[in-house]
Amino acid sequence: MALLQCSPVYRPLLRQLVTQQNRSLRSIPSLHAAAPLKSFSTSSPAMTNAKILNAKNMNAQILKAEYAVRGELAIRSEELKNDLVKGVKLPFKRVVSCNIGNPQALDQKPVTFFRQVASLVEYPELLKDENAEAAAKFYASDAIARAKLLLKNIGSVGAYSHSQGIPHIRENVAKFIAERDGYAADPSMIFLTQGASAGVQLTLEMLIENSDVGIMIPIPQYPLYTATLAVLDANPVPYYLDESRGWGLTTQELQRSYDEAAKKGIDTRALVIINPGNPTGQCLTEQNMREVIEFCSKNRVMLLADEVYQTNIYQPKDRPFHSFKKVLKSMGPSYEGFEMISYHSISKGMIGECGRRGGYFECEGLDSAVLEQIYKISSISLCPNVQGQIMVDLMVNPPKKGDPSYAQYKQEYDDIYHSLVKRAAILEDTFNSLEGVTCNSADGAMYLFPQIRLPKKAIEAAKQAGKEADQFYCLAMLESTGVCVVAGSGFGQVEGTAHLRSTFLPQPELFDDFCNGIKKFHADFMDKYRD
Amino acid sequence: MALLQCSPVYRPLLRQLVTQQNRSLRSIPSLHAAAPLKSFSTSSPAMTNAKILNAKNMNAQILKAEYAVRGELAIRSEELKNDLVKGVKLPFKRVVSCNIGNPQALDQKPVTFFRQVASLVEYPELLKDENAEAAAKFYASDAIARAKLLLKNIGSVGAYSHSQGIPHIRENVAKFIAERDGYAADPSMIFLTQGASAGVQLTLEMLIENSDVGIMIPIPQYPLYTATLAVLDANPVPYYLDESRGWGLTTQELQRSYDEAAKKGIDTRALVIINPGNPTGQCLTEQNMREVIEFCSKNRVMLLADEVYQTNIYQPKDRPFHSFKKVLKSMGPSYEGFEMISYHSISKGMIGECGRRGGYFECEGLDSAVLEQIYKISSISLCPNVQGQIMVDLMVNPPKKGDPSYAQYKQEYDDIYHSLVKRAAILEDTFNSLEGVTCNSADGAMYLFPQIRLPKKAIEAAKQAGKEADQFYCLAMLESTGVCVVAGSGFGQVEGTAHLRSTFLPQPELFDDFCNGIKKFHADFMDKYRD
Repeated sequence: MALLQCSPVYRPLLRQLVTQQNRSLRSIPSLHAAAPLKSFSTSSPAMTNAKILNAKNMNAQILKAEYAVRGELAIRSEELKNDLVKGVKLPFKRVVSCNIGNPQALDQKPVTFFRQVASLVEYPELLKDENAEAAAKFYASDAIARAKLLLKNIGSVGAYSHSQGIPHIRENVAKFIAERDGYAADPSMIFLTQGASAGVQLTLEMLIENSDVGIMIPIPQYPLYTATLAVLDANPVPYYLDESRGWGLTTQELQRSYDEAAKKGIDTRALVIINPGNPTGQCLTEQNMREVIEFCSKNRVMLLADEVYQTNIYQPKDRPFHSFKKVLKSMGPSYEGFEMISYHSISKGMIGECGRRGGYFECEGLDSAVLEQIYKISSISLCPNVQGQIMVDLMVNPPKKGDPSYAQYKQEYDDIYHSLVKRAAILEDTFNSLEGVTCNSADGAMYLFPQIRLPKKAIEAAKQAGKEADQFYCLAMLESTGVCVVAGSGFGQVEGTAHLRSTFLPQPELFDDFCNGIKKFHADFMDKYRD
Repeated sequence: MALLQCSPVYRPLLRQLVTQQNRSLRSIPSLHAAAPLKSFSTSSPAMTNAKILNAKNMNAQILKAEYAVRGELAIRSEELKNDLVKGVKLPFKRVVSCNIGNPQALDQKPVTFFRQVASLVEYPELLKDENAEAAAKFYASDAIARAKLLLKNIGSVGAYSHSQGIPHIRENVAKFIAERDGYAADPSMIFLTQGASAGVQLTLEMLIENSDVGIMIPIPQYPLYTATLAVLDANPVPYYLDESRGWGLTTQELQRSYDEAAKKGIDTRALVIINPGNPTGQCLTEQNMREVIEFCSKNRVMLLADEVYQTNIYQPKDRPFHSFKKVLKSMGPSYEGFEMISYHSISKGMIGECGRRGGYFECEGLDSAVLEQIYKISSISLCPNVQGQIMVDLMVNPPKKGDPSYAQYKQEYDDIYHSLVKRAAILEDTFNSLEGVTCNSADGAMYLFPQIRLPKKAIEAAKQAGKEADQFYCLAMLESTGVCVVAGSGFGQVEGTAHLRSTFLPQPELFDDFCNGIKKFHADFMDKYRD
């Protein structure tokens, strides 16, 4: 269905992103492996055809959406986890979930100060003066002060807040942005959200007027974008990042992408940039970013800047992070009114508080009627969860030099940072040591995206199995090592190439085993399928 | 636009629900009153017409959605709150937010045991054996045990969980349902969500195949339903609750509603029941509920049972709560395969943890392919926030007799309950004492929905002001008393009637002032406008 409705130029891309998953889905009797008590099967098979709500009459757009990060490989990895718990003998002792940027599931420690504040605001008894001495055993004085300040501005963490997010916290977000960029930010232009994903979905929902609308997305991209565009029945307009140039992007490629879409009658309205990139990890230069803004201005597309990995920066001298807000403001008053939304999240960086679901987006140059509609849509869901909002406050306003918790905060932050840098390098070397595999460095983010040059026999075997070649490879890796990654076809890639995305988050003490497992698997795989 | 696309029979209803708000919206220069630093106005007026994203080319469905609960009245109440903070002299000392069921914003105390557990899981340092003695100063032993058990099954509250919700917690939800109903429940049929609202929106998104699809909704209803159907471009199919019969519903009315829709080519696929009702507070009898299930079965519509107020029950002998799941199962094997989803939330009941955004829905009789799609869509947002999931666990699995925290838990729970019963009665009497006002009792929920018979002069003045009559009345109430309610036109009502919805949540110590303020306002209003 997606293929029929989609312009021919995008069919190969959509085929990669959709058909592979559909074929994989059909070959699995039940997708729901993680509920050991019962799979999704109706108790009366005879009733199935008569179901009021069924796959033939449900919202067809939803059927088209695919999200490989928690797709077939992740589901299979859950089955294997359950098998291990049950004592089934497998070629590996543990499942290693490298499919998703979920640091605290792999034992990354949370920031102590943040968790102290989060703990205190739940239970204000701890903040009473008469309990100060006992509380001081567990809680730093600045954590106590912060909790008191937050509750003064919030009331209870159990109450619905302002639908746009607690004003006090939005003011702190604005201060953070101003300090980061050197240009003012306005709290009323900031919306707190349940993760950046929620902000992206809201934005795209606002933009998609009809099924002619196109949104430019990088290839490879984080599949939230293609999944959401599928649900909204809009056109992904792909622009290719150049693997041979460190996943760089050029305005020629942006223009080619835009122009081809226009020829097919697609009305491109926005450009998504993920910087630092996901899955590709590259950081854009300021010059590059100015060119992107000029491109948007010239072609009248809105800029959507996904900047959730802005503190995961591994080449801070050569490839530091620049926010699009800063670059825009630096381009002066002729860009006044330029329309842009920037997204940030508490899920990434060094803090990794994914399960809390918090983030924000900052609007720049938007129409006031549009802002009112954004507010209105936010109000229907009442508000983002308050603990998530609080973590945004902590993220943008952490302990400062001179604060009692500063030394510990800095130590914890730096330790995680250095550990990430180290593991990124080890895994990159591991991939580059594999036969037929090349892997670009990660300037930023949490992932490596190596290219695997698969032998013809493997590609043929994949076809026989009804899988994309890289999915076939990744499934084999999972079954023999317990390592769960995501196939490149889940993110989009140049036709005929194969990649995988792996985080470099497995625990430091298990990292050598993890890398050795990959090396052994790959050698065995190549022995089996080598031309 | 909504009117043109909508069947004529629904135009009066839609007009009530949409046009009043649109008129109100146009008469306010800026809706965003709660960001004191800046309103939503673009800095370059000349740029406004040239905006890439504007009110004319954005997703038109969003423009049609209205959500009065946080609409004009709530926004104006925020302006007045800010005025009071700034020291502006107003006819009242405080704004009283009765527009939304948000108990902890009105000083309702959270359940101590729940907050202890929530505090502990944030900061596992407190759970270490060496800290047991110090922790025991603040935390009950069963709270500590529960926190340990939860973290054993979760890992970290900062990690993404299973997209369907933590398996351990879903097992506890299933146990709760089984104990409540006397019929088994299956954890794999349960999805944890960020509040019931998120579950409702997901369900409707699944159901709306095209713009011919209709969803039956009660009039009056909680406007999440109409707002979501507007965004999804589907048809609300209204069935009227009978105010003269305690807001009862009859199958004749359900059938009339369904048949009229069918005549207009509307393909009705589901029936929404809110039980206990919102805004109307009625509890259905078992007989009534069996008739509803029979109606659904006969007409092949899915049942969507919004049961978030199931513990707010004020006539437990005469009008106890029955879950639709229980009634369905009691109807025996001929109803095997009946399709239904039931929704619950942590926001209401006695616990009122709205700001945490937690809840679940239980699927019954759904097609397995549909369940896979529900899982897939859930996975795109990764997971519901973990603290919200934990509060679901606490709600369905609170302290039991014999547990150290039981006595305190029971005391707190009962205190809140009795206070709600008391305040509901006082406010009901207050409304019934007003000239031209009648108010049904609340069997359940948190609201009263009195009918106001407005004099002709008031209706005329409302017209002059470009407002619905009840909106005009409510705005006047807000400006003179500081009490913020929601006009009946925000929920839907029989044409020509006027209502308002008020919670009965204002603090007990302020309740007399609150009621007296309403009495005085109404008397003055009638003096001004009496025929």
